[in-house]
Amino acid sequence: MNNKSIGVFDSGLGGLTAVKSISALLPKENIVYFGDTGRLPYGTKTEDTIKQYSASDIRFLLSHDVKMVVIACGTASSVALSDMRKMFDVPIVGVVEAACEAAVKATVNGKVGVLGTTATVKSSSYLRGISDIDNGIQVFQRACPLFVPLVENGHFNTEVTKLVVYEYLEEIKGQGVDTLILGCTHYPLLEKAISEYMGDGVTIINVCKELAKSIGTILGEDNLADREYGVCEYYVSDNAEGFAELGGVFLERKIDGQVKKIDIEKY
Amino acid sequence: MNNKSIGVFDSGLGGLTAVKSISALLPKENIVYFGDTGRLPYGTKTEDTIKQYSASDIRFLLSHDVKMVVIACGTASSVALSDMRKMFDVPIVGVVEAACEAAVKATVNGKVGVLGTTATVKSSSYLRGISDIDNGIQVFQRACPLFVPLVENGHFNTEVTKLVVYEYLEEIKGQGVDTLILGCTHYPLLEKAISEYMGDGVTIINVCKELAKSIGTILGEDNLADREYGVCEYYVSDNAEGFAELGGVFLERKIDGQVKKIDIEKY
Repeated sequence: MNNKSIGVFDSGLGGLTAVKSISALLPKENIVYFGDTGRLPYGTKTEDTIKQYSASDIRFLLSHDVKMVVIACGTASSVALSDMRKMFDVPIVGVVEAACEAAVKATVNGKVGVLGTTATVKSSSYLRGISDIDNGIQVFQRACPLFVPLVENGHFNTEVTKLVVYEYLEEIKGQGVDTLILGCTHYPLLEKAISEYMGDGVTIINVCKELAKSIGTILGEDNLADREYGVCEYYVSDNAEGFAELGGVFLERKIDGQVKKIDIEKY
Repeated sequence: MNNKSIGVFDSGLGGLTAVKSISALLPKENIVYFGDTGRLPYGTKTEDTIKQYSASDIRFLLSHDVKMVVIACGTASSVALSDMRKMFDVPIVGVVEAACEAAVKATVNGKVGVLGTTATVKSSSYLRGISDIDNGIQVFQRACPLFVPLVENGHFNTEVTKLVVYEYLEEIKGQGVDTLILGCTHYPLLEKAISEYMGDGVTIINVCKELAKSIGTILGEDNLADREYGVCEYYVSDNAEGFAELGGVFLERKIDGQVKKIDIEKY
């Protein structure tokens, strides 16, 4: 039994889709969430900057004595995970590994599509993750830089979103993938528009759900919490009010408790 | 005569549209440009954070001994200008004042529209600027949060952009404005899509052109440079390569010389 919290970070709100999945599967766990809203987005930035930001995010979470760090951000998971594991002496898990395993299990025709931010696609993290498990699988990647701003502005299934989905997915659809990884924690909010365009025959992999399933296994029974129900504390580097307001959309329930602003440049 | 450089900063690339206008009007001036690409965008962030970032950007420019600071960012000009003038002992100019003067001169029917980021509209900077000159003028503001990501992803006049322009401008067009301020230095790249939608009868105010005209006056003849032609140095807080590549689109000429990355969190 280990009643310490699980630390979760993301560039902003997207990681709350992971919190939702973790809370559903492991309701007894306390979560400390950090959203780096003062420096978001990560997906358009360079590898060095994403690593520097991820390290300070983890230092902040460790100041809350967490038992594990969850990188609930497709970009940081893709670019910074292995460096962070070398830097910090705490179990760290990202969204890529579990999603790759799920995609390999799901595909029948051996063709998998990956949607991610510019930085994620540049890193080829999902491509490598899938090849490491089964190098017979063909992987088609596509950067979708407008998806995050669309989600952040409430364009979930509008005409604008449908046009952008068409622009980004036309090629990948033509390549005949039967499995599609939504490689960024913002993208589940576009799942309807994406799956409508791709059609019924395509399995959509939501990285947050796969991540949540893997956490229990990684922690091990001895390190799970034992209490009636867990609580979640939220910290951001900017705009605590906006986070409290919009967060509910990602979490699919109201954000309970206070959202506190901290100065991340100090970590 | 004063051969020190003019310092210019923006959250990223947008301010290069101001550099273009300044170089055209004052070709003898050297410019030190800082684009805060590691922390962009500013337009979605809170007042406190925008002030904190602006102050560090100015401290960086002052480390290059500039004779003047130009805030070539609609958001920072709207939110931080008066605080920055109190904090620093150097002439500081933003994009709001000159644009308001130009709009007041241009309007015939006394109805002016303002497009800006979420933070700019929340600050009501243009509204106050225009009222201070002529409080008989009606001002209609509209936040356009998807315009910056559209520009940054090369969507200048696509179907997606036209749909978003329609979404954001329908109301303001209905209000019958005859003058429209593009209150963010990214927006001139959408001018074609915007002016096509608004129609011929509407005067578009480009904040960068107005800003450039005011700089000579503010500096005064004694403080202008005297050399054959000026040069421009570029600094960013992330992705120097991307800046060099995309910058040409904003500048309408190739970025000459090196773009250097600096650590802005030290300033």
